[in-house]
Amino acid sequence: MKYSGLFTDFYELTMMQGYMTHQKNEEVVFDMFFRKQPFSGGYSIFTGLNDMLEILENLHFFQDDLAYLRSLKVFRDDFLEYLQGFKFSGSVYAMDEGSVIFPNEPILRIHSTIIEAQLIESLILNTINFQTLIATKAARVSYASGGSTILEFGLRRAQGFDGALTASRAAYIGGADATSNTLAGKIYGIPVRGSMAHSWIMAFNSELEAFRKFTELYPDSAILLIDTYDTMGSGIENAIIVGLEQKKKGKSISVRLDSGDFFYQSREIRKRLNDAGLEDSKIVVSNDLDEEIIHQLLTDGANIDTWGVGTNLVTGGTDSAFGGVYKLAAKKKGDKYLATIKISNNAVKPTTPGVKQVYRFYNKDESAAADLIALEEEDITATRPYTFYHPMYFHDKFTLSSYGRVKKMISIKMQNGKRINKDLPIKDLQTRVKNNLKCFDTSYKRIINPHIYRVSLSEKLKSLKAELLDEFK
Amino acid sequence: MKYSGLFTDFYELTMMQGYMTHQKNEEVVFDMFFRKQPFSGGYSIFTGLNDMLEILENLHFFQDDLAYLRSLKVFRDDFLEYLQGFKFSGSVYAMDEGSVIFPNEPILRIHSTIIEAQLIESLILNTINFQTLIATKAARVSYASGGSTILEFGLRRAQGFDGALTASRAAYIGGADATSNTLAGKIYGIPVRGSMAHSWIMAFNSELEAFRKFTELYPDSAILLIDTYDTMGSGIENAIIVGLEQKKKGKSISVRLDSGDFFYQSREIRKRLNDAGLEDSKIVVSNDLDEEIIHQLLTDGANIDTWGVGTNLVTGGTDSAFGGVYKLAAKKKGDKYLATIKISNNAVKPTTPGVKQVYRFYNKDESAAADLIALEEEDITATRPYTFYHPMYFHDKFTLSSYGRVKKMISIKMQNGKRINKDLPIKDLQTRVKNNLKCFDTSYKRIINPHIYRVSLSEKLKSLKAELLDEFK
Repeated sequence: MKYSGLFTDFYELTMMQGYMTHQKNEEVVFDMFFRKQPFSGGYSIFTGLNDMLEILENLHFFQDDLAYLRSLKVFRDDFLEYLQGFKFSGSVYAMDEGSVIFPNEPILRIHSTIIEAQLIESLILNTINFQTLIATKAARVSYASGGSTILEFGLRRAQGFDGALTASRAAYIGGADATSNTLAGKIYGIPVRGSMAHSWIMAFNSELEAFRKFTELYPDSAILLIDTYDTMGSGIENAIIVGLEQKKKGKSISVRLDSGDFFYQSREIRKRLNDAGLEDSKIVVSNDLDEEIIHQLLTDGANIDTWGVGTNLVTGGTDSAFGGVYKLAAKKKGDKYLATIKISNNAVKPTTPGVKQVYRFYNKDESAAADLIALEEEDITATRPYTFYHPMYFHDKFTLSSYGRVKKMISIKMQNGKRINKDLPIKDLQTRVKNNLKCFDTSYKRIINPHIYRVSLSEKLKSLKAELLDEFK
Repeated sequence: MKYSGLFTDFYELTMMQGYMTHQKNEEVVFDMFFRKQPFSGGYSIFTGLNDMLEILENLHFFQDDLAYLRSLKVFRDDFLEYLQGFKFSGSVYAMDEGSVIFPNEPILRIHSTIIEAQLIESLILNTINFQTLIATKAARVSYASGGSTILEFGLRRAQGFDGALTASRAAYIGGADATSNTLAGKIYGIPVRGSMAHSWIMAFNSELEAFRKFTELYPDSAILLIDTYDTMGSGIENAIIVGLEQKKKGKSISVRLDSGDFFYQSREIRKRLNDAGLEDSKIVVSNDLDEEIIHQLLTDGANIDTWGVGTNLVTGGTDSAFGGVYKLAAKKKGDKYLATIKISNNAVKPTTPGVKQVYRFYNKDESAAADLIALEEEDITATRPYTFYHPMYFHDKFTLSSYGRVKKMISIKMQNGKRINKDLPIKDLQTRVKNNLKCFDTSYKRIINPHIYRVSLSEKLKSLKAELLDEFK
């Protein structure tokens, strides 16, 4: 079902039939880009590309899809016949999955006939917008925790079945250490973790018995939930009893807090555990956490080892969508691409025209300095100074003369409908994200009010954009 | 894959093995309820029940699920053998899908062995939380629009594949009139609608040509997107040219605005259309809308016929999760249920114990007056006055003496693993929601700062809860 060509906005199909009617089957280039960082943050993590390529490679119309379309009495037989044989035959150019991305730069380009490019718009945006949102959130949560352990606990509040599954994938790529979602563990090879529910405690005659029985069964991974009745009373007392019993067997325990004030509790509980001689026990917390709460707790001096993050990690919390868009950038005339622009009434909304490449300039210490968007035909190499122009306010510019290397960010991922090669396993994608983020100064990664990384146009691209804007005046 | 028993939090499986080890296979009752209305609203719409029952009826472990669990080296052979034969054999009691629901009342009860009840917690919450969130949002959007046409346009920003599909289902049940998601149209039988993208306009040599070609092809449903270049200039002018051509053929057009200020534009465009003699043309708007924006625009006097609502409708916007929880309410001892309570440190968080029923009291004019939560064994009939106790502040009470009828809200939906009967088609579920909402005074449906509908405990249930709370002091 995931491969059905019907997973598209209805207007794509009516437009496709229109393009067919008017014999508009020219080659075009569509860009995917976004305008604003989610979470008021300083960066995003490009995620979902591999899933998207897999769907694209298998996309087709099932017999009952065509029967459904026929039943709508909107589509002609010749168009339905075309859909029957449909297979995406275009090419995909994109940044690597796991790249650190910024507003207004192309992260992905589709080169195909307009009729094909139109069909796949919705599925590309759906797949990449969601996974990018969640990986970005995970990277922020992981950063806020200062590299502590992050457990993704979101299944029960995620947006549906796949909202849970792909959120687990994206959260892991972004930096979560494990998931509670067992099916995601199986499908993606993500480590699975968990503790116990309040119902486990309530199923036994006493809290102590419940802790003991669990620890006997899982001596190496017991996380005791201590807030069912009285956290600072019976909860921690019973946990210490079981912790001491385990200590004699050379094992340690963890305790989990799921309510109350974590600053006060974690410090007090750490003290009680240490006083009892359980210095190697760990404190796990969970309860509507997000990166801002984690950052605040750690800044204040809370004593927490592991963070269970659910709802906000798998849905994005108050930012529940990544605003990636898909816009026509060029049309082929003869053997040349003709740049197109979309103006709209809103001054900041015009698109950047043409077939474009993104170059990331690194300082000599390997930290990222700025991104330059240039035309694909330009030859940007690390041999001379470049002037960087603001994507909209062209008078705002600067020249970079002293820098280390330049990285070409966009490369071909699918040629004429065939994937170029499989990407790395998910664990390595997580490592790639970590390594990519290391190149960015902490000021860009600040949780609140981060520094804005510079994304600019090359001189040639700036001139082209200015020219097309003038044409419409 | 949707029916895999692995779609559960890992701790459910470790607890299940624990229950098996300690021969805890007593019958229990779990409640699903929630604590706070989403969107700072006055009500929610219970949705997702039918999908959940379907999953529950088919839930099992595939061979490779068991192989995966075995590979984790946490589970014993006897437990894996149990899972191999697993089939949910419990019963489900619930309100009807489409019911108007309120905090702290049970909306669903699971009666089964604790081992079975534990496995299904995550999937019940995942399915119902998400669909309830979206149906509630749709009901609010529809109410704000004063019954105008609502088109759900969320596919590209939805949270993944299923996040889009089930959001379309839930939005339709909640009150949306159509979806842009073609696959959702096919699967659920929801009407599909759409207009055209900016890329359609840009693919032609002129805006006028693009409008004309589209209208020739789709004369009965052409929605012309007028903001690609200059909304109040070429956009509306070209739309009027095409509108007049269509008028001669006895057809009408719609225009769509996707940017700018809709108050100013819609009034001006309505005037221009009317002045041109196109009084029966319609104005469609879309651009990050939600119920508060719609309410504000209509209050101010905007002239809009149809609302395309995307991101906020299919993700919930800033409220991206419905906080339904699943808590142990009773354990069977002999042939009687023993009520259980979960206290926690937070005064407002104790659960309401026991096997419970919800009664909705209606005034004589058929408007809903208040809900009474009572023990299932109580006999609440419309024959005498009842005293209603606040679920936590027991001194806060009132007596209802004069009322019309009483409706028992919870009924059996699945018995010993078998569904009682199929629910209505989706169109009728939408009608059911509309009829249910009609019984609630507008003060409860107000978009901002609504009146709080009263949900109370019966005297008997209040006494039981007070008793159990005392026991833990």
